[in-house]
Amino acid sequence: MLALSAVLRRQQFLIRALGVGGSHGGISHHRTMQAVKCMSGTSLEADADSILRAITPTLDRSRHKGQAGKVAVVGGCREYTGAPYFAAISALKIGADLSHVFCTKDAAPVIKSYSPELIVHPVLEESYSVSDLGDEDRRQITSEILAEVDKWMERFDCMVIGPGLGRDPFLLECVSKIMKHARESNVPIVIDGDGLFLVTNSIDLISGYPLAVLTPNVNEYKRLVQKVLSSDIDDQDAHEQVLSLAKRIGGVTILRKGKSDIISDGEIVQSVSIYGSPRRCGGQGDILSGSVAVFLSWARQLISATEGNFTISPTNPTMLGCIAGSALLRKAASLAFENKKRSTLTTDIIEYLGRSLEDICPAS
Amino acid sequence: MLALSAVLRRQQFLIRALGVGGSHGGISHHRTMQAVKCMSGTSLEADADSILRAITPTLDRSRHKGQAGKVAVVGGCREYTGAPYFAAISALKIGADLSHVFCTKDAAPVIKSYSPELIVHPVLEESYSVSDLGDEDRRQITSEILAEVDKWMERFDCMVIGPGLGRDPFLLECVSKIMKHARESNVPIVIDGDGLFLVTNSIDLISGYPLAVLTPNVNEYKRLVQKVLSSDIDDQDAHEQVLSLAKRIGGVTILRKGKSDIISDGEIVQSVSIYGSPRRCGGQGDILSGSVAVFLSWARQLISATEGNFTISPTNPTMLGCIAGSALLRKAASLAFENKKRSTLTTDIIEYLGRSLEDICPAS
Repeated sequence: MLALSAVLRRQQFLIRALGVGGSHGGISHHRTMQAVKCMSGTSLEADADSILRAITPTLDRSRHKGQAGKVAVVGGCREYTGAPYFAAISALKIGADLSHVFCTKDAAPVIKSYSPELIVHPVLEESYSVSDLGDEDRRQITSEILAEVDKWMERFDCMVIGPGLGRDPFLLECVSKIMKHARESNVPIVIDGDGLFLVTNSIDLISGYPLAVLTPNVNEYKRLVQKVLSSDIDDQDAHEQVLSLAKRIGGVTILRKGKSDIISDGEIVQSVSIYGSPRRCGGQGDILSGSVAVFLSWARQLISATEGNFTISPTNPTMLGCIAGSALLRKAASLAFENKKRSTLTTDIIEYLGRSLEDICPAS
Repeated sequence: MLALSAVLRRQQFLIRALGVGGSHGGISHHRTMQAVKCMSGTSLEADADSILRAITPTLDRSRHKGQAGKVAVVGGCREYTGAPYFAAISALKIGADLSHVFCTKDAAPVIKSYSPELIVHPVLEESYSVSDLGDEDRRQITSEILAEVDKWMERFDCMVIGPGLGRDPFLLECVSKIMKHARESNVPIVIDGDGLFLVTNSIDLISGYPLAVLTPNVNEYKRLVQKVLSSDIDDQDAHEQVLSLAKRIGGVTILRKGKSDIISDGEIVQSVSIYGSPRRCGGQGDILSGSVAVFLSWARQLISATEGNFTISPTNPTMLGCIAGSALLRKAASLAFENKKRSTLTTDIIEYLGRSLEDICPAS
């Protein structure tokens, strides 16, 4: 199906260059081939702790508001309000300075009421609120919404698109345009939930955009594989499949959620298998998307600040963001479960994000 | 640019009179000149602890509701609700008896939902809610809003204008009138956030009003300096510039937020440099504005009660309020950060306001 040889040669080089996963320095051809064969195993386990330590910025007195990250979540409609809150508050709890939510007018007061820390913009519209309008008026409303989001766009280090977005056609059409503008402005986008429904049906929205991250769960991944690779999930060669999929979508980064999270940008594939929690309460994916957004922003900042003298591997900020986000969520979930057992909820896990990060890279 | 000699002579006198910063009693001409030269250094560091102890009222059984302060926050619109909440709840957590919020109709239910402790008045209107009305109807609405605020005005010890106000033209016009009424009633006003946007463009609103306090961050300060002094930020002579700016606006008090907070009323300049926290999450400025409002009220009460036998320096209640508010926020931020590290949010800092004040001047 896909000629993997070039990809695997690069992977082979990167395994050698990694350094973070063990001493692969003098890797022999034999061992390289073994490593490649083991792609579905644990040999590609990322050294998430080293990555977390490398990309999390040190805090010092001279920093000013916004430098630790400004993220925005596009999501939240009449039906769903928890998901965008989880994503946005997680970003703050990890250490971002400002977290915005762009949602529908109905959803805004509720999301605001969850926390005074978020900046919530009641700008999106669903079909029911424009059903009496003609095409011209609808176009007018769409352009007003876009203008409202554009006012803020360039200030954002990353956007998360999808948590609690719903599937209303008018709303999704509008969000497609927001994604196009984000892409034009070179703002990284993390796509989850209903955002994945949108891009699976309109893959051009993100195809070839290296700053796009998709975080599908098993069902979302299945639909994506069917649509893009015209095949079914391959659990035997799970790593290769994620790699192929990311490559086929032009080098976006895919974080396939599962027992192990498998992450690939079409060039390299890594896993995060740290044990989290057996609780599968809804909302954990939203924590992940908000976390990836922050870590991706930090990795990008660091790479830009070090001007090529960046010694961490992988070197792609979207890969680093995914590895860090996945690992931190798992650690926080594990601590929350230790404490709350069967009654562990997403809000409990969020409360452990700070301590989990502190355990790995103390703030002072 | 500004003939500072008279100002510096007074400053020189005040350094001698200070007493709070060390033993400047027998200060020689030589040492005075040094102190003046050190204006950008630490020699003008306020003795914030002494000030906090001096102006915080003792609590006793005979006191009745309202004596410890009644403050009002004017802010909160469709987009922003967290900021006015932070300012208003901070006032209560420090020890004020009553805290009001005047906001738009949209914002009120959300702000109310953050805390049952606040009195929230849904009185302000934004342009979109008056867009169908003619000039006469708009004037009518404006006068109704003013009448509603005026009913309360004279009960307030201080008003905070700006947190989460937004920049809607109709709303800002209305708030200009509220400021004029506050000034006519001799109610002190602390101006932050979008309130600073308003007064920077209409400096007459506060020019020459000694009970006005402006609390600009670096960007807001820059705009103010450009507008009023027609120059750029001068970091070399930061203290002198704040002093010049305050003097040029007719003796309002300016608290320039930064690594050190620099505070001047055009007569004297002081710094607060106690280390706070390296977290720069949004909302800390709102805590500051609410805190300054309470301390300013307490300082004014004390000065009025002692009828001139007031031994604390500086003697201007707005200066005292700013020094106390700045110091307390920094102490609370430091305690919150010690506990919550990177995940420290504004609500965490608010939770430490009480303990920070208790550490300095125990309630009993």
